Amino acid sequence: MAEFIEPLEELVEQFRRLEGIGRKTAVRLAFSVLNFTEEQAADFASAILNAKTNIHLCPVCQNISAGDLCPVCASSSRDTSTICVVEDPRAVMAIEKVKEYRGLYHVLHGAISPMKGIGPDRLKIKELMERLTDGTVKEVILATNPTVEGEATAMYISRLLRSQDIKVTRIANGVPVGGDLEYADEVTLFRALQGRIDI
Amino acid sequence: MAEFIEPLEELVEQFRRLEGIGRKTAVRLAFSVLNFTEEQAADFASAILNAKTNIHLCPVCQNISAGDLCPVCASSSRDTSTICVVEDPRAVMAIEKVKEYRGLYHVLHGAISPMKGIGPDRLKIKELMERLTDGTVKEVILATNPTVEGEATAMYISRLLRSQDIKVTRIANGVPVGGDLEYADEVTLFRALQGRIDI
Repeated sequence: MAEFIEPLEELVEQFRRLEGIGRKTAVRLAFSVLNFTEEQAADFASAILNAKTNIHLCPVCQNISAGDLCPVCASSSRDTSTICVVEDPRAVMAIEKVKEYRGLYHVLHGAISPMKGIGPDRLKIKELMERLTDGTVKEVILATNPTVEGEATAMYISRLLRSQDIKVTRIANGVPVGGDLEYADEVTLFRALQGRIDI
Repeated sequence: MAEFIEPLEELVEQFRRLEGIGRKTAVRLAFSVLNFTEEQAADFASAILNAKTNIHLCPVCQNISAGDLCPVCASSSRDTSTICVVEDPRAVMAIEKVKEYRGLYHVLHGAISPMKGIGPDRLKIKELMERLTDGTVKEVILATNPTVEGEATAMYISRLLRSQDIKVTRIANGVPVGGDLEYADEVTLFRALQGRIDI
């Protein structure tokens, strides 16, 4: 496989470790780095080390955070009676962009997937349960992805919460706004019809 | 633009500097790094610094090299009477894979592009001319890309060499092997017809 000189091959291999990067793209990225100045390369390397050193998980919601608590958990203006459960930090950012939701979050860091060998114990479910013990939280919104794994995870958590006096909701499935019914898949259309609302 | 916590945003910005990486991909790559172990992140950072420190240009052919001379220039079994001129190191690797060409190379590190403000002086053309002074080289194969910039560069170099007793050739244009005439563009088909050979 070593088609390049050794330091370049090593860099290509490092890029290949990144999510969704194949060999051809890794080669392109490695050559990009070679075109950097020494200073740019040093900045790049230190950004990697910095991110790894300074970013940790918020002890409350498990979202990534540079401070002690994440900005959402540290804020005094959030509605502490609602927790929105998501698979990863990117989902938190996507929901925050909407500027509609004022509650708290809980990041699971994955979804249950027997295929990938990820069981409930690999997710931050225990930490979620601990947050629900003191009675502050009245509603848990399950906002895991609308995939087989996400649905399974939502189902699993909803069962765990069945015995507790907490409202458990799931985000709606349906046709995306701006989409075309013609291109919507059958399962989505079925869910959109099932979830129809009065106007 | 700072939608993420600062060390993450910084890492995203660094990834965006790489060729062909937009914001969404940069975010995905940055999150990949967060999933690395401390050791993996350190390996990645040092591979970047290593590549930058240990890779330089071969003083003869201007190809990237980890040693003093590149493997091709250092080899005693190459035909020193032929130089194949290419735009970048990736082209050298592509031609080497064919295992057909036994001559030397010269890497220009770009092509003439008035649109991007790249003139002949920004390329390693002066270095090429110096290699042609001692009379060893009998043929220069212009293997710049079959694009407007590559053609202009080939034309420019061929004019520089007109006064010298050196054969100057250009790689053939035509339909790619395994391709379908139906999908070949008109210019390629025109060139394929023009360059037809007896069988």
